[in-house]
Amino acid sequence: MNAGPKDSDYRARVETSFARQGLMSTLGASILNIAPGAVDIALSPGPAVLQQHGFVHAGAVSAIADTAAGYSALTLMPPGAGVLTTEFKINLLAPGTGERLVARGRVVKAGRTLTLAQSEVFAEAAGTERLIALLTATLMTIEGRDGVVD
Amino acid sequence: MNAGPKDSDYRARVETSFARQGLMSTLGASILNIAPGAVDIALSPGPAVLQQHGFVHAGAVSAIADTAAGYSALTLMPPGAGVLTTEFKINLLAPGTGERLVARGRVVKAGRTLTLAQSEVFAEAAGTERLIALLTATLMTIEGRDGVVD
Amino acid sequence: MNAGPKDSDYRARVETSFARQGLMSTLGASILNIAPGAVDIALSPGPAVLQQHGFVHAGAVSAIADTAAGYSALTLMPPGAGVLTTEFKINLLAPGTGERLVARGRVVKAGRTLTLAQSEVFAEAAGTERLIALLTATLMTIEGRDGVVD
Amino acid sequence: MNAGPKDSDYRARVETSFARQGLMSTLGASILNIAPGAVDIALSPGPAVLQQHGFVHAGAVSAIADTAAGYSALTLMPPGAGVLTTEFKINLLAPGTGERLVARGRVVKAGRTLTLAQSEVFAEAAGTERLIALLTATLMTIEGRDGVVD
Repeated sequence: MNAGPKDSDYRARVETSFARQGLMSTLGASILNIAPGAVDIALSPGPAVLQQHGFVHAGAVSAIADTAAGYSALTLMPPGAGVLTTEFKINLLAPGTGERLVARGRVVKAGRTLTLAQSEVFAEAAGTERLIALLTATLMTIEGRDGVVD
Repeated sequence: MNAGPKDSDYRARVETSFARQGLMSTLGASILNIAPGAVDIALSPGPAVLQQHGFVHAGAVSAIADTAAGYSALTLMPPGAGVLTTEFKINLLAPGTGERLVARGRVVKAGRTLTLAQSEVFAEAAGTERLIALLTATLMTIEGRDGVVD
Repeated sequence: MNAGPKDSDYRARVETSFARQGLMSTLGASILNIAPGAVDIALSPGPAVLQQHGFVHAGAVSAIADTAAGYSALTLMPPGAGVLTTEFKINLLAPGTGERLVARGRVVKAGRTLTLAQSEVFAEAAGTERLIALLTATLMTIEGRDGVVD
Repeated sequence: MNAGPKDSDYRARVETSFARQGLMSTLGASILNIAPGAVDIALSPGPAVLQQHGFVHAGAVSAIADTAAGYSALTLMPPGAGVLTTEFKINLLAPGTGERLVARGRVVKAGRTLTLAQSEVFAEAAGTERLIALLTATLMTIEGRDGVVD
């Protein structure tokens, strides 16, 4: 339903932009996969990202889910544009525990100004995975604004 | 509209629980204020919490807004209960920049099982503040579940 | 925080637009109040708007809350523009029952393209009112698009 | 991922409950399909459900999307339980126009107390369909409460 990437360099663009995100480095998150309209981000549960009960904090789950959604949108944006999240909603279905969390961002509909993307977050443990969160986000394409280029 | 705290020790309870949140320490967030049904959390914009354009990452804004909402709910919960976020939505109105971000969480309606809370996030700079985000969250009261006590 | 109306005729504009909404007429909803950045809509619970338990259907609650939010945004838009909802979230706090529901829409932040508004929905009964729902909506200002003028 | 229906009579239960929804009758909505964890609802765009620009009102789109989500959840609930929506978020991607709107509700995760469901709304015209809205909803299982039985 969505056209392909308008920027053939979409992969390097996401990697370069991700590397500039201080928060992703702080959380220890990393990119697992980049494809047109789809980006996966991984996070290892460790003390630095937990909340008071020993689960990954909803804020950290949201951070990787929002990032996966945002970069899935960026893969379809024209060169020189920047991406900003204008809103998201997340449902937290189960505690974030296990060996690794993976947020899988997918574009639902790419528009000229607004793109809707969705991220599913899975917790991997003992060779299985279970869905722990679902996020829907609106991403805005920013063009011609100083400092907002990805 | 909401009854007062069911646990007279609500202040120490929030402080102790917050101190156990690895993510808040990782982000450098701190508690500014605790009152029945109201908790404020502060965050200093620094490289560790930014995204690629130099703004505070939506995930970090969400983390302090969710935490402020969650602890505002906890101040009204019975002793021995734990608080979990089941969902939240955040609208990001302006880039998170400035000297300090403050998330002000307030209970909208406290129920036996589900509580609705809202957080406004303000960016402070040069003696003024502006609203940069608005979050609404559903918090669940957890009772009698091992390991989920605040 | 929001500037005043850009269209001095904002009141007539909302009334004319509302009169063209077939759904509001179908539901029996009416305008209670129009002010810059604020519009109130009323609905009488009756068989035509109920769900299976005898409460006002979440869809009908949402319809008046969205309409109140949208028209509160329209009061601040330039002449000739149209308003469209791009997303909303609603928390349903208590069953919609009583003599009358009133949705109070208020602009949180008016931007050039996107406006954030919020509606509280109250149920009135026996001289008291209680909050039954809270909606946050993003409204888009549409300019220069055929057929989308309010 | 979700277990099968706990009530073998789930189909008649949804049909009977739907027939009691005054709002669905008022809007002219009908059930297209009922399966475990999945319910589709149809609506014909007509003057009674439009907004001011001639598109189906966001409130009417939400009403069928919420109903489809709610009944998809009900198909997996135990006999005697009732279903209530506690919150939903909807993204409106394109104007609701065409010959027919179809909301396809699907359970994402069924829990004992809370179920997450999602509805996609499609507009059908000239033999094609396009996605016009995406809703995520939290549904609550109500047991042992007078008058709340589906």
